[in-house]
Amino acid sequence: MQNFSFYNPVKIVFGKNTISQLNQLIDKKDKILLTYGGGSIKKNGIYKQVKSALKNRKVVEFGGIEPNPSYETCIKAVNLGKKEKINFVLAVGGGSVIDGSKFIAAAIPFKGKDPWQIVKSGGADVKSVIPFGTVLTLAATGSEMNTFAVISKLSTKEKLAFGTPLCYPRFSILDPETTYSLDKKQLRNGIVDTFVHVSEQYATTNLNTPLQDRFAEGIYKTIIDIAPAVMTGKKDYNSRASFMWCATLALNGLINRGVQEDWSTHSIGHEMTAFFGLAHAETLAIILPAVWKYELKNKADKLAMLAENVWGIKKGTKQQKAKAAIDRTVKFFNFLSMPTSLKAYNLTLADCQKVIDRAAKRRWQIGENGDINANALKKIFKLCL
Amino acid sequence: MQNFSFYNPVKIVFGKNTISQLNQLIDKKDKILLTYGGGSIKKNGIYKQVKSALKNRKVVEFGGIEPNPSYETCIKAVNLGKKEKINFVLAVGGGSVIDGSKFIAAAIPFKGKDPWQIVKSGGADVKSVIPFGTVLTLAATGSEMNTFAVISKLSTKEKLAFGTPLCYPRFSILDPETTYSLDKKQLRNGIVDTFVHVSEQYATTNLNTPLQDRFAEGIYKTIIDIAPAVMTGKKDYNSRASFMWCATLALNGLINRGVQEDWSTHSIGHEMTAFFGLAHAETLAIILPAVWKYELKNKADKLAMLAENVWGIKKGTKQQKAKAAIDRTVKFFNFLSMPTSLKAYNLTLADCQKVIDRAAKRRWQIGENGDINANALKKIFKLCL
Repeated sequence: MQNFSFYNPVKIVFGKNTISQLNQLIDKKDKILLTYGGGSIKKNGIYKQVKSALKNRKVVEFGGIEPNPSYETCIKAVNLGKKEKINFVLAVGGGSVIDGSKFIAAAIPFKGKDPWQIVKSGGADVKSVIPFGTVLTLAATGSEMNTFAVISKLSTKEKLAFGTPLCYPRFSILDPETTYSLDKKQLRNGIVDTFVHVSEQYATTNLNTPLQDRFAEGIYKTIIDIAPAVMTGKKDYNSRASFMWCATLALNGLINRGVQEDWSTHSIGHEMTAFFGLAHAETLAIILPAVWKYELKNKADKLAMLAENVWGIKKGTKQQKAKAAIDRTVKFFNFLSMPTSLKAYNLTLADCQKVIDRAAKRRWQIGENGDINANALKKIFKLCL
Repeated sequence: MQNFSFYNPVKIVFGKNTISQLNQLIDKKDKILLTYGGGSIKKNGIYKQVKSALKNRKVVEFGGIEPNPSYETCIKAVNLGKKEKINFVLAVGGGSVIDGSKFIAAAIPFKGKDPWQIVKSGGADVKSVIPFGTVLTLAATGSEMNTFAVISKLSTKEKLAFGTPLCYPRFSILDPETTYSLDKKQLRNGIVDTFVHVSEQYATTNLNTPLQDRFAEGIYKTIIDIAPAVMTGKKDYNSRASFMWCATLALNGLINRGVQEDWSTHSIGHEMTAFFGLAHAETLAIILPAVWKYELKNKADKLAMLAENVWGIKKGTKQQKAKAAIDRTVKFFNFLSMPTSLKAYNLTLADCQKVIDRAAKRRWQIGENGDINANALKKIFKLCL
């Protein structure tokens, strides 16, 4: 086990009808910037719940934060927040709204010339952040209990992550009933996102971290067990509640303590979203199995462990078990009606050349062993056809 | 799943040679009250590491906090802390030193007449607490990452718990190497304590909380897997590291979110320590199997789940599996050379009558269903003979 530190001060308020607690969670004198996405919260009643909980407070609204939140959109919210002198940001939505709001909360007090520097520096240039909280409406990214955000710059087709301990939400309200209005694609994407988040922290090198491994396997097992109930689309509270808690704990900095992490699937996936417009989870489902195939030797220990402890495969050599883990993962994604090939999106190796070229330009050496460079990436894309 | 809130702002610094980070974790201007136990830290080099990390800071020392920390001892530290106008408490030790230090940190600023009221009120009467941090030297109680403390009043033979969100440590340093000097009884007790902590939060009513259940099973499985290596007493870093992290996560308020909790074994065990002087873990190992037998019907679901998912018992009816879980638990305790009967300590049912009498006087209705009263307790003690 590697040395680590762990610190996560986010207050989670979880369960039915918890949005009503919103008013107590924000200081009475704060002027709130309420951020949200495409307006679905106005159709499904969540907006009404939020406004009713906030009673007569001063609230400035900013809607329209898109999936893969763009720098260009967020900057408009930053300007509004500055003009209105808001001092609390309340994000109501999924990971995109929360990620965008983290950027907004960091950019409002930002003293530098170019706010894109917040993202470009990976968060290192952030010196202060306006306090913010979230009302989560989509289980997937884990952004509600971590410090990370991924922002896209449309003008340069860049999609990059930043994070700083200043970017912990003060609180996050997780009411599983808010997910009842999601469509099957959103549910599918959330399940795949959670699965891949766990994978980036688990399917790496075995550093003798049994407790972290059992916790990771616990998230895998739970999402696999509840997926059929979630994918019916029915209002089944128990499966939605466990799904939401899985997504949060998959990326709150707990299961990765003391372990080696990968994140190459995410890095490649972000590029594919930036260039081809695929949804985040769609890119992950294509890339993860290919990265696992490419890294089979390095990841054999943990993939065999995954096969044994999650899929119950007890027979075969380590190599056979590792391959079986990849097969079962692809089958699970397909069960969710999630494609796992470039072909499904009419993408060819030639299309992917621009991703490879940018990887070369950025001198990528990603993955837990730093062995995925532009050449390796070409081989990985070949495994995705 | 029940509604819940989760908030745990303790900063954990985990790993080899982490005591050296102590100085950065405490505000430069703080005057420190350094608390410790029977002086083992002076023999095993931990005291030296702490003092060296603190460099030339102002430190007042208070040693001699005993196992099952007493009100009478802690009050002396409170008086010293007041006299010396300290403003940070640094606990170096195991759960007893940390629990005692939580009381000390709460009692120094306490405005009431009688500081025992802090304990008697269960923590409700605590209005402020002096900031405190810990250097953990014994994996067992989880006190390093929670708000609870158990204090004994020698004059009245009472042993009671209190807790308040004000009692989170600011930080806890967990260096697994500090446990190398523990003897086999201390290691055994720590393993049993961790096992029973998980059990109080897992072996209750099934409220459809699969993720919490898998996390709890992950702690069970890990401590069962590492117990042989730990019990050799050898300086095996990996097993000590996992043991320490298991003990912390067993009682930091994570695995019990949204579930029903029991804690009857602890309540009975505290009385037995208060009356008979048995070590905390010794009482738990006697009582837990008896409570499980007494509550077999109510706990059958979860005990069968324990048998299946932790001990790998796939055959038999639910009842048979539940019984097998109890058998395997007793065998595990015995493997650790931990007795599981009153007889092993020359205690009879007649001796236990005073525990029963006090339960009657306090009108006990404990356990997750509130069905353990004085009468039930007598039946439970009969199952411990």
